[in-house]
Amino acid sequence: MKSDNWFSLKYSDGEVVFLDQTKLPAVEDYVHTQSYLRIAEAIKRLEIRGAPLIGIAAAYALALSVKQGYSQQLFNDSYLTLASTRPTAVNLFNCLNRMRDFCENLPENKRNFENLILEAIAIHKEDEQGCEAIAENGKKIFNSKSRVLTHCNTGKLATGGIGTAFGVILRGFEAGLVEMVFADETRPLFQGLRLTSYELSKSNIPFKVIPDSAAGVLIRDGKVDLVITGADRIASNGDSANKLGTFSLSVLCKTSGIPFYIAAPSSTIDFKAGGFEDIPIEERSSDELIQYLDPDLGFKNIDSFNPSFDVTPAENISGIITEKGFYTYPYNFS
Amino acid sequence: MKSDNWFSLKYSDGEVVFLDQTKLPAVEDYVHTQSYLRIAEAIKRLEIRGAPLIGIAAAYALALSVKQGYSQQLFNDSYLTLASTRPTAVNLFNCLNRMRDFCENLPENKRNFENLILEAIAIHKEDEQGCEAIAENGKKIFNSKSRVLTHCNTGKLATGGIGTAFGVILRGFEAGLVEMVFADETRPLFQGLRLTSYELSKSNIPFKVIPDSAAGVLIRDGKVDLVITGADRIASNGDSANKLGTFSLSVLCKTSGIPFYIAAPSSTIDFKAGGFEDIPIEERSSDELIQYLDPDLGFKNIDSFNPSFDVTPAENISGIITEKGFYTYPYNFS
Repeated sequence: MKSDNWFSLKYSDGEVVFLDQTKLPAVEDYVHTQSYLRIAEAIKRLEIRGAPLIGIAAAYALALSVKQGYSQQLFNDSYLTLASTRPTAVNLFNCLNRMRDFCENLPENKRNFENLILEAIAIHKEDEQGCEAIAENGKKIFNSKSRVLTHCNTGKLATGGIGTAFGVILRGFEAGLVEMVFADETRPLFQGLRLTSYELSKSNIPFKVIPDSAAGVLIRDGKVDLVITGADRIASNGDSANKLGTFSLSVLCKTSGIPFYIAAPSSTIDFKAGGFEDIPIEERSSDELIQYLDPDLGFKNIDSFNPSFDVTPAENISGIITEKGFYTYPYNFS
Repeated sequence: MKSDNWFSLKYSDGEVVFLDQTKLPAVEDYVHTQSYLRIAEAIKRLEIRGAPLIGIAAAYALALSVKQGYSQQLFNDSYLTLASTRPTAVNLFNCLNRMRDFCENLPENKRNFENLILEAIAIHKEDEQGCEAIAENGKKIFNSKSRVLTHCNTGKLATGGIGTAFGVILRGFEAGLVEMVFADETRPLFQGLRLTSYELSKSNIPFKVIPDSAAGVLIRDGKVDLVITGADRIASNGDSANKLGTFSLSVLCKTSGIPFYIAAPSSTIDFKAGGFEDIPIEERSSDELIQYLDPDLGFKNIDSFNPSFDVTPAENISGIITEKGFYTYPYNFS
């Protein structure tokens, strides 16, 4: 059995099939739907999440919305419904806009489901191939038997392929270059504990989940050979925004002389952002801190500081891996 | 109303009254008991926790066990029952041994509840006074309006007085020297989210709870003026073991030039431990990672790395505060 013959989302025979991620890891529930509204709901409810995967799902949904017949009005309504599911996800808009531009460039009599679904499939395929290219470009970060630490979730549950940082780890493992993985549980939403642990299990990669605060001693005590994470947004100088906790990992790595890498599609690079100061940090709801906690604890609300991500300065990053290449400091992506 | 007129454990009129900490912060349930077995159970079940408070509770319990009449056999049995509640807590043994030595030094006809309870009260009183002395010695760490970050739980719920690191913060706040506190939630057992937030509320100190991984950006971005934590064990060179996550805080502080302090009773200093290498790190059960999580997540077991504490090297510590004084690097406590 191939270690990775499962999927988080696919299009097949006129329907989208997706794994409901809110039920993981307890239950593997695959939802079959031809309804773009069901997909919009799934994105809203985080049944489908991970920036690249959201974009792909939305592209399929936009095509499906005109399956019974295309009209400009219907298409525009569907576009707006899908665009409003997760207002901050840049991949979502990129994919929806690509679908809209594709549609507008078609002769009117070719604007139909059959043509639109081909573009959605192409978007998915490109993401899948991009993941493979990232994994290939990232292979050089491993020594013969690396012990790798990662943060948050970057695999199949987040992308249209094998993942970004996770894809690098997976292909490294298959090549015998990865001994085991430490997965940060990733507070507050436990993407590591809930999702990355699921992906690691599915790929038969030996792993341990750790409280985020355990990374420090693992790195210091030489129990980790390298750290690799994804990124949500990369400035043109290499400063990289990623899930809260990434910055601290980079400092701990730098202090201990352990390499710290980022893997992300080149579409993550924001050339309009010169650096650190151009990346705003969104503060998230305090509810997230207690969302997955036992209701018996009786928390109702708690005043918290809960930024969605933090920014790691370029000089803390040993290498940035995209589908286009492997970059090192000082970063110049052009 | 004085801000701190509540208690976690007291002896009064022949009974011990304690706050069941397992129900916090949802429910304030004070348990009244004259039974040493009930207190032993409370220590085992973490209804009473925090190393100094456990020791005090056990001293009271040992006295109460001979309330109906002293016998050597009864005393020894109670001693063993209490000693087996939390096998690794050094304060527990210290207090029980002090009670035993006190008893053995009494003439046989004076070995009774009335005399033993006085010694237990003295133990409690000394801890209370020790906390005040720590707070007094620690006052100098604040500037006019400090924003303080702390980790784990070190206040009234953990000690017989106002606490160690928490006591320093509390008295600093009352003196107008503390503007607000960031409390690390402290994974995996959430002592910050569950207990320190309760103590801060009770003392009307403005605070925010943060995911442990948010400390890095707060420290870097100048939103924190100093960090202060307790310690579980301090080696004679100043290397300090404390709750997992403390080491990372010290590195982040050092990198950003923010002072990092430790406050602890002098009994925490282990003169037999020369440094870092003499402090063993206990690995805790993986169950702790999922203990407070929503059961609906469906976790049964998860392979994890979950050390109970980590060791911060002396050179990362700006000052160590005990009831005896304020020490700076290089540390010499004798």
